[in-house]
Amino acid sequence: MQMNRSINAERNLTMLMDFYELTMANGYLLKGKRETKVVFDMFYRQNPDQGGFVIAAGLKQFLEYIENMHFDEEDIRYLENKKIFDPQFIEYCRNFKFTGDIYAVEEGTIVYPYTPIVTVVAPILEAQLIETMLLLTINHQSLIATKANRIVRAAKGRTIMEFGARRAQGYDAAIYGARAAFIGGVNATATVSADQLFNVPAVGTMAHSWIQVFDSEYEAFKAYAEIYPNDCTLLIDTYSILKSGLPNAIRVAKEILEVKGYRLKGVRIDSGDLAYFSKKIREVLDKNEMQDCKIVVSNSIDEFLIQSLLEQGACIDSFGIGERLITSKSEPVFGGVYKLAAIEDNGEFIPRIKVSENTEKITNPGYKKLYRVYDQNNIGKIDVIALADEIVDYSTKLVDQNKPWKRYSIEKGWRIEPLHKQVVKNGKLSIKLPDDITIRQRTLDNLKTVWNEEKRFCNPHTHYVNLSEKMYDLKMKMLNQFSQEDLHE
Amino acid sequence: MQMNRSINAERNLTMLMDFYELTMANGYLLKGKRETKVVFDMFYRQNPDQGGFVIAAGLKQFLEYIENMHFDEEDIRYLENKKIFDPQFIEYCRNFKFTGDIYAVEEGTIVYPYTPIVTVVAPILEAQLIETMLLLTINHQSLIATKANRIVRAAKGRTIMEFGARRAQGYDAAIYGARAAFIGGVNATATVSADQLFNVPAVGTMAHSWIQVFDSEYEAFKAYAEIYPNDCTLLIDTYSILKSGLPNAIRVAKEILEVKGYRLKGVRIDSGDLAYFSKKIREVLDKNEMQDCKIVVSNSIDEFLIQSLLEQGACIDSFGIGERLITSKSEPVFGGVYKLAAIEDNGEFIPRIKVSENTEKITNPGYKKLYRVYDQNNIGKIDVIALADEIVDYSTKLVDQNKPWKRYSIEKGWRIEPLHKQVVKNGKLSIKLPDDITIRQRTLDNLKTVWNEEKRFCNPHTHYVNLSEKMYDLKMKMLNQFSQEDLHE
Repeated sequence: MQMNRSINAERNLTMLMDFYELTMANGYLLKGKRETKVVFDMFYRQNPDQGGFVIAAGLKQFLEYIENMHFDEEDIRYLENKKIFDPQFIEYCRNFKFTGDIYAVEEGTIVYPYTPIVTVVAPILEAQLIETMLLLTINHQSLIATKANRIVRAAKGRTIMEFGARRAQGYDAAIYGARAAFIGGVNATATVSADQLFNVPAVGTMAHSWIQVFDSEYEAFKAYAEIYPNDCTLLIDTYSILKSGLPNAIRVAKEILEVKGYRLKGVRIDSGDLAYFSKKIREVLDKNEMQDCKIVVSNSIDEFLIQSLLEQGACIDSFGIGERLITSKSEPVFGGVYKLAAIEDNGEFIPRIKVSENTEKITNPGYKKLYRVYDQNNIGKIDVIALADEIVDYSTKLVDQNKPWKRYSIEKGWRIEPLHKQVVKNGKLSIKLPDDITIRQRTLDNLKTVWNEEKRFCNPHTHYVNLSEKMYDLKMKMLNQFSQEDLHE
Repeated sequence: MQMNRSINAERNLTMLMDFYELTMANGYLLKGKRETKVVFDMFYRQNPDQGGFVIAAGLKQFLEYIENMHFDEEDIRYLENKKIFDPQFIEYCRNFKFTGDIYAVEEGTIVYPYTPIVTVVAPILEAQLIETMLLLTINHQSLIATKANRIVRAAKGRTIMEFGARRAQGYDAAIYGARAAFIGGVNATATVSADQLFNVPAVGTMAHSWIQVFDSEYEAFKAYAEIYPNDCTLLIDTYSILKSGLPNAIRVAKEILEVKGYRLKGVRIDSGDLAYFSKKIREVLDKNEMQDCKIVVSNSIDEFLIQSLLEQGACIDSFGIGERLITSKSEPVFGGVYKLAAIEDNGEFIPRIKVSENTEKITNPGYKKLYRVYDQNNIGKIDVIALADEIVDYSTKLVDQNKPWKRYSIEKGWRIEPLHKQVVKNGKLSIKLPDDITIRQRTLDNLKTVWNEEKRFCNPHTHYVNLSEKMYDLKMKMLNQFSQEDLHE
């Protein structure tokens, strides 16, 4: 077991918040709301890329932040210099520690729109001050894990390597993006830090510059094979793939490697018509009795290009995926939101709802729990959002908000699984977090419980997300109250 | 002057590299190339969003990395554990310091495709090991600065606030993205860290949760106005903009603020039809003698939506821009590349070229310098890429690669400005870096030297990037050499 460093522990990210969190927190304190407990839910409204689901990721880094959260002397000085915050609030910040409870679905879990991925129960100042970091962390990693998983599924078992650091949106996007991609199922990364920090296997051999630095392509290949006979993948597209790169690679395989009992592990192309060249290369390699030599390709690849290449019969063993994965180029935003669900009053949580003219922006009110119902074949059929104080069982009536006139029950024999785990209790981490290899395995296991119809890239089946009847009735009661106030614009 | 902390100095990002940089560096060392000096250029091929130019940004963070670059004990242990690196190389890493020279265009400079933004002259191992961090840093910040500048230009002098942290691709994307947006010309950010680190003014007042926590919208507004009478912008779309939010805001303005001699600074809407509501709100505010009350809008805004809103006569004073800026959603990748240009042999730099079937991927060979030529009106008319050892003056012949049969001269009286500054000499920072407010001003000043025709969002004029005749002839000579080898696939 390799020792891992945590670059998060080296940084104090407490001030990575929106300024309004400070103005609100100061305000709540001055208005006597310091002890008021609230419930906030983090959820999202739309699957990226019109997909069928999302892979939840980022919880570990969010919890590291929660544990490490503190205003240091420089932060306090910054707040004082603003001259708008009350001395009581500055003092509050000086002694700040998160003291609340956090419930969340575990990383590597498949999740669906409108379901609470993270629920925070905490004094209002604390719940407000963590908003940005919670959203930022989960939004980013869930986006990349989800995109990675699409690419992995398109490749149907072929190796996927994440190659995007140079095009990532900043250092963390490279490092945590590689982690999220791994959780999403990719096999390896080019990013060394991600190996060092998270044990994502790092891979890489040579750039075009290696070939250009030597007097000839053959000399360059020979030099590499001599140093790394055991793990030699040659980049064969610097001059001409078929007339120069491939013949030189084969010559090195025969003259340098095979004579010493080694095999050429692979050839890589980073340009040209990947379908055409991969087939030509395979043919030539096979003729030279190099059936075990892998063909690796890169160059602006995503899930759709992989599908197209495989349809054309391209002979590709391994894909290096750069910018289109690390930025989720086709859909670079994951729109998770953080909404107030309830406020404590005399020891009881009073539900709150956010109304909107856009019905999809109306929130589900109340302190809630999330369940998934699996059928006899262990397929996750329905997600149920229920109130925290109700018991979800075979007698629970469910409402599909698209067909609100109907009531559903859960079939006997189907399994009801609570998806929320308490991860923080009174400000302290309350579970042991798994390592990233375990989380990646959870993704792959979880995928087996997803309907195939939800895995399509085009028009996937919309997962059933139901409300318990109790939750639905509460929501309708609250909405009716607003509509009776006649606030139509 | 506020004390700034550097979160970069707190982190060792040395290992944020592609694994192939390590395998190549180890290989170069073993093949006796440790002392071989090379020249690498960083450049890009296409302006994002089909724009006319890019705002260069990120150099300061790249140079911080260069100065701080070192392999610490944990890094060395990591390398040893890989069991593929030679002990000599491990020892090399243990004593690593960057010793080369770096030339670059300054941050806030307008740049164009194919021009060298950064040129590295260093021993090959060093030049290779910094590749990822150079690209990652400049690519990310240039992307965001460029997008920000488009949005700023669309707003024609109205205030632009960067609100994107929660949707950014990781922590650095939020923090350095806010910096890059500021360099691109935005006025403020919601991200507190960016204020603390870079003096980007942080702004923010309240979320919908603030309003929901109080017993009524009026109570919420009143509470806020009492605490921040001097800087009070109220969010008026929680329930109903015109029937609830605006009347309550006006009531608070009159009953709480104006009686004490304060004015309501602004109202904000984050939903609804921004054109329609902003006009209605303006009307009502003006009727209430609140002409000085600003209207602030947010909600999925970008440069095109701003143009459309202004065309519709929307009454908006200030835009809060979130996800579409912080991720450059319409074009989330800036494709800067890092290519070998020359190798030292017996004290002379021998040019190298990367050929490709895709002509746009053929590199410009040799150790080079970049110049900009300004006309009498101080408009930057032509960029000239020349060899480092030639003098560019009125006698220099220029070649436009799109019309290679022509030769151009520089008009007498036009000003020739070298754009490359030496920023690192023998591994040490050789210039004093300006603060970010100065860099932002450079962007704004630089913009005045850009042809208006290059500022269009649709079909902008393509800036003239010429090669010196000497550079062009060298390139042709090298390409002919390759083509005579008949490497057509």
